[in-house]
Amino acid sequence: MNKVLTVVPLGGVEEIGLNMTVIGYENDMLVIDAGLMFPQEDMLGVDFVIPDLSYILENRDKIRGVVLTHGHEDHTGALPFLLREIDIPVYGTPLTLGLVKEKLKEHSLEDRELISVKPRDIIQLGVFSVEFVRVTHSIVDGVGLGIDTPIGKVVHTGDFKLDPTPVDGQLMDFHRFSEYGENGTLLMLSDSTNAEKGGFTFSEKEVRRAFENIFSTSKGRIIIATFASNIHRIQQAIDVAVKFDKKVILCGKSIVSNAQIALDLGYLQIPRETWLKLDDLNKLKDSEVVIITTGSQGEPMSVLSRIATDEHKHIKIKDGDVVILSAKMIPGNEHSIGRIINHLFRRGANVIYEKVSEVHVSGHASKEELKLMLNIVRPKYFIPVHGEYRHLVYHSILAEKIGIPKENIFILDDGDMLEISEEGARKNGRVNSGRVFIDGKGVGDVKDMVLRDRRRLGQDGILLVLIAVENLTGKIVSGPDIISRGFVFEEASSVIQDVGNLVSETLKGLDREIMSDPSLIKAKIRSVLKKYLRNTMEKSPMIVPIIFEV
Amino acid sequence: MNKVLTVVPLGGVEEIGLNMTVIGYENDMLVIDAGLMFPQEDMLGVDFVIPDLSYILENRDKIRGVVLTHGHEDHTGALPFLLREIDIPVYGTPLTLGLVKEKLKEHSLEDRELISVKPRDIIQLGVFSVEFVRVTHSIVDGVGLGIDTPIGKVVHTGDFKLDPTPVDGQLMDFHRFSEYGENGTLLMLSDSTNAEKGGFTFSEKEVRRAFENIFSTSKGRIIIATFASNIHRIQQAIDVAVKFDKKVILCGKSIVSNAQIALDLGYLQIPRETWLKLDDLNKLKDSEVVIITTGSQGEPMSVLSRIATDEHKHIKIKDGDVVILSAKMIPGNEHSIGRIINHLFRRGANVIYEKVSEVHVSGHASKEELKLMLNIVRPKYFIPVHGEYRHLVYHSILAEKIGIPKENIFILDDGDMLEISEEGARKNGRVNSGRVFIDGKGVGDVKDMVLRDRRRLGQDGILLVLIAVENLTGKIVSGPDIISRGFVFEEASSVIQDVGNLVSETLKGLDREIMSDPSLIKAKIRSVLKKYLRNTMEKSPMIVPIIFEV
Repeated sequence: MNKVLTVVPLGGVEEIGLNMTVIGYENDMLVIDAGLMFPQEDMLGVDFVIPDLSYILENRDKIRGVVLTHGHEDHTGALPFLLREIDIPVYGTPLTLGLVKEKLKEHSLEDRELISVKPRDIIQLGVFSVEFVRVTHSIVDGVGLGIDTPIGKVVHTGDFKLDPTPVDGQLMDFHRFSEYGENGTLLMLSDSTNAEKGGFTFSEKEVRRAFENIFSTSKGRIIIATFASNIHRIQQAIDVAVKFDKKVILCGKSIVSNAQIALDLGYLQIPRETWLKLDDLNKLKDSEVVIITTGSQGEPMSVLSRIATDEHKHIKIKDGDVVILSAKMIPGNEHSIGRIINHLFRRGANVIYEKVSEVHVSGHASKEELKLMLNIVRPKYFIPVHGEYRHLVYHSILAEKIGIPKENIFILDDGDMLEISEEGARKNGRVNSGRVFIDGKGVGDVKDMVLRDRRRLGQDGILLVLIAVENLTGKIVSGPDIISRGFVFEEASSVIQDVGNLVSETLKGLDREIMSDPSLIKAKIRSVLKKYLRNTMEKSPMIVPIIFEV
Repeated sequence: MNKVLTVVPLGGVEEIGLNMTVIGYENDMLVIDAGLMFPQEDMLGVDFVIPDLSYILENRDKIRGVVLTHGHEDHTGALPFLLREIDIPVYGTPLTLGLVKEKLKEHSLEDRELISVKPRDIIQLGVFSVEFVRVTHSIVDGVGLGIDTPIGKVVHTGDFKLDPTPVDGQLMDFHRFSEYGENGTLLMLSDSTNAEKGGFTFSEKEVRRAFENIFSTSKGRIIIATFASNIHRIQQAIDVAVKFDKKVILCGKSIVSNAQIALDLGYLQIPRETWLKLDDLNKLKDSEVVIITTGSQGEPMSVLSRIATDEHKHIKIKDGDVVILSAKMIPGNEHSIGRIINHLFRRGANVIYEKVSEVHVSGHASKEELKLMLNIVRPKYFIPVHGEYRHLVYHSILAEKIGIPKENIFILDDGDMLEISEEGARKNGRVNSGRVFIDGKGVGDVKDMVLRDRRRLGQDGILLVLIAVENLTGKIVSGPDIISRGFVFEEASSVIQDVGNLVSETLKGLDREIMSDPSLIKAKIRSVLKKYLRNTMEKSPMIVPIIFEV
């Protein structure tokens, strides 16, 4: 009864992002994906987040490799931080590895071993043999995984939708998934992102129809903002541009770099005469121009953002321009996106976005597709992944509906260990897990306390109380001086003066014993001011008393 | 040619919120609505925002009154701040005034004159006669306005939708709007909130169907979260509770207070035996319980939030409970709402929300309704209001479509003055306008500089550099000591030490002239550290050098 398969999600089951799962059997382990997450609003000043990698590092001798399902950063963004610590081979399809390579370069990790695979390739990683199975998604070259383990088949869908008419004609490999179902699947892990949404997700090709409508009626320049990794979206914009005799200019570092990678690998086709440079912009008639760029989420430094606020050197919005935001408005970004839309309208552009036209479709399967996948693969055990708790709940309701017994469905937390043996499956404890904040160039240097401080500082600012006291006597020789930042507008307020007076009075009332101990003075000042500011102003700035002993 | 009507929106045409418009003719002015706005994410520490009232205060002798279209805070929330400065009569329907009264009490302004009107009442305010016209909206007792001016009729729709089956059977007054159209309307101002949305907005009654489905199938307790002002939503929950033999408990200060106001005025009906108190909760079977509360936006101190995190004294979630979020997920709040949903699911509740069921409908007209309103009223001039720039643009496209000439449609900014005379209409300059931040108990004490500081503090924290220098010689007698807050986790980092060393070295290199001038020392420290931290860490904490002269 040593034959136990362990499954540990290190991220991706309590959030959208951080996707990373470790599968183990005796002395072998493999890692599926290594993703990052972009921070939520209340994580001020954090650039991004990665999963705690200590479980992997503790088992470094057992890890046989990392297999990647696709090239989105929520599946690959933690890879540099993993490969910095441990040198293991990484397996992925060509585009996935092409994008990863760029990232590794930035981290000076070009020497790491990247092994390219194609769909239906099978690789051996210790006791595991891993088959790559094509799926359709909002990035080219996505795969699911069929993993042979000593006690049965584990299927991981990766991120997928069932696109019946994919842009490149490469359908999802129904046949292989179906074979897994026919031969018996022990466990499936499947994408829960859209488990709340009824029906089927539209095909990527639907976007082409929207583009054609817009291209055929607009007389001005067309500017399309999308994700740099969405090669099919870019391909469709190019195809429609060719159809309507327009030229394409790719604008922005990431989109040019991604397009070049996709071109080199043959995933993107641009006729030579269609692809022009930004320098050629002025040689073209407005009706000939299609600019493809990034910034669909309202990112402040993006090309689109700079265009919208007249800060772009070469592209100024004018009457007749059409701007298409061909991307989902990610929750939390609506305000920034809304502002950009307003700016563009004000400058004379017509702006078209998800809410008003079909210029975007999701890359994730909706309820009917999820049920179909469950019915095809027919797993004995099921773990919904890629979602917050509520998405996993809705996905598990679907699994129950198609007949998987409730006790065979496992909603895991990040770090939970699921053990599967011939006797059954059960949660068995937790491994070290959590989130590591990446801030500027530092790694994990922003701990919770610092985040709490930032939140407080950002809320009500800071109040410094400076006093110089004589070393032994405790006599005040200078101060109190009050300095505030982010608190109240000093000149317009008598608050600062009131605070100073209050501190003076408080100090007068203290006996010499307290006055000779700076830490007691500080505590006293803090408690008096805290109470005063809360009662009079309902504010709680950070209060930092500073005592100089002279 | 002195016959000029002026129209000035002081808020509501660059944002959702702050609705307030001033109409003037010779020596008479009237104010339509006086709304607040809840802050956006980047306004850290601001409780809410009101329009700059100085245009009204400058013309205080001309102001004849305030007319309110309905009781939502984005139309009434600035009223206490207006009435604090100027004592003028306020006109509104009974529920609107009932809600306003509560607010005025909080500000000790109970003595202000509130004059109750009913639909089709006509009041005289200087040269203006104002007729109140019933509309349907997500709050009871909403009205539009038909204003007779010396040069023609001005129609203001208020916030509206065309609900064909309103809960209280009180239809919108198509007939009066139609009469305005028949007799000729000079100008219309109309609600643009949903101008991006195709089709018709569903009737409020559709929500009843969703409630009935849920009530008929659930065996546990039902908890409904909605806006306290949405009396019809509360009525429907009560009606369905009665139908299924359940009892209703209203939970939370604002919902009890609003319900009491509506009950007293006859806008809400609760059978005596249906309405129980929270104390009765334990006497009821789970299947009998319906709790109606607030917190649908994930507000951290709300009842729902406390229930979701096990911090509510009396209500603990258990298996079988059903929680319904019967409200729009307002953009910007999705993360907070998502977290609450996850917490509730984890504790065993089934959570139902807009995305997965029809438990909410909008209160604002969609495209087809907006076009119908334009066709009924047939105004010569049109001002889209109640929206951000993009909503106004989409609304004006609809107006053009139904035949209003483009030059007769005016997209205004907050503070723009539109002048209309028999010769025509034109923008003519701007009045003082802007946003005033209300923060804790202060009014407008947070200026932009402070907001910028807070943003910066919240981003990268603060770094204090403390030095004591001898007064004349400039000799350092103590320090540099480095204190940071919200910057890096001190113990885990050598950064603080590096900063200290860098300051020491910098100070050594300064000549005596500089050292004897604290402001020069400060400038030098700031510039050296700023550059250093940006280059090594890509961070920009606020740097505050503090020099003690001893």
